Amino acid sequence: MDGVLSDIYAQYIKYEQEDLGITQSIDKLAGKPENHAFVNIYQYIYSSGFFYSAEQIAGSIEAVQKLNNSYQVFIVSSATQFPLSLIEKINWLAKYFPFISWQQIVLCGSKEIVHGDIMIDDHLKNRDHFVGKTILFTQPHNMAMENGKYLRVNSRAEIENILL
Amino acid sequence: MDGVLSDIYAQYIKYEQEDLGITQSIDKLAGKPENHAFVNIYQYIYSSGFFYSAEQIAGSIEAVQKLNNSYQVFIVSSATQFPLSLIEKINWLAKYFPFISWQQIVLCGSKEIVHGDIMIDDHLKNRDHFVGKTILFTQPHNMAMENGKYLRVNSRAEIENILL
Repeated sequence: MDGVLSDIYAQYIKYEQEDLGITQSIDKLAGKPENHAFVNIYQYIYSSGFFYSAEQIAGSIEAVQKLNNSYQVFIVSSATQFPLSLIEKINWLAKYFPFISWQQIVLCGSKEIVHGDIMIDDHLKNRDHFVGKTILFTQPHNMAMENGKYLRVNSRAEIENILL
Repeated sequence: MDGVLSDIYAQYIKYEQEDLGITQSIDKLAGKPENHAFVNIYQYIYSSGFFYSAEQIAGSIEAVQKLNNSYQVFIVSSATQFPLSLIEKINWLAKYFPFISWQQIVLCGSKEIVHGDIMIDDHLKNRDHFVGKTILFTQPHNMAMENGKYLRVNSRAEIENILL
């Protein structure tokens, strides 16, 4: 969800602007883990409204709508580390993705308990225990990684090309 | 979680006492689906505090503690249908099961996305897509079901005998 559907980097940058008065550009953040890129990141993540007020990544709604018509889609999000995020994520999905039912939502800690045929994720760690096909969704923190070992996509259009 | 760790029937009975002034006994509820057994069940489930104020099923804490020492344990709970329940379930686990980390908690809708070696659950529907071994935890709603097709346990002691 974060970094695939929800534009979490725009939130980090906006919160840091308000917090520290500095504005980092996306291209300077390539290859940096999120908690190195933003020094007060946990303060932002733990604050009320952080997840609910995030924007969708451009085209996410249309892409998920199309996938949802052809696949059994689950939205799986790491959330239990941040208890405030639980209701915000449910409400955020209801706002942008009302066609996703409660049956299709999973809020978890580790994603290693999840199985399926295809996982689209921005974090490599979530792929370690996944037996199906995995697709890495480009986000600044994973930009420095080699492409050789995994299928990388940079946009909703690329996902649609591969899966639809 | 509900009906395995959390004594959800005691909650239903208590809420119905307060709501309708009637006190159903557990042995009269055998074989009835929960939403037939308690006419205003959704009113109770959707009310604030319902999940957080539940008691643990006797012995749950000790049993999970022991299992957690020998297995990789995940607590998987159907929760996204009831958004209020999300934070209450996290807080409830923190209260009774503080040794369970956020990485081990999954709040979902359908459990068909979950995989593992052993599932302990009170609902047969959750077993349909599970590839590992399943153990049915006795609760009133499943009492009328035949034992032939699945392994049934009636208490934490029986679980410990099987798994430890």
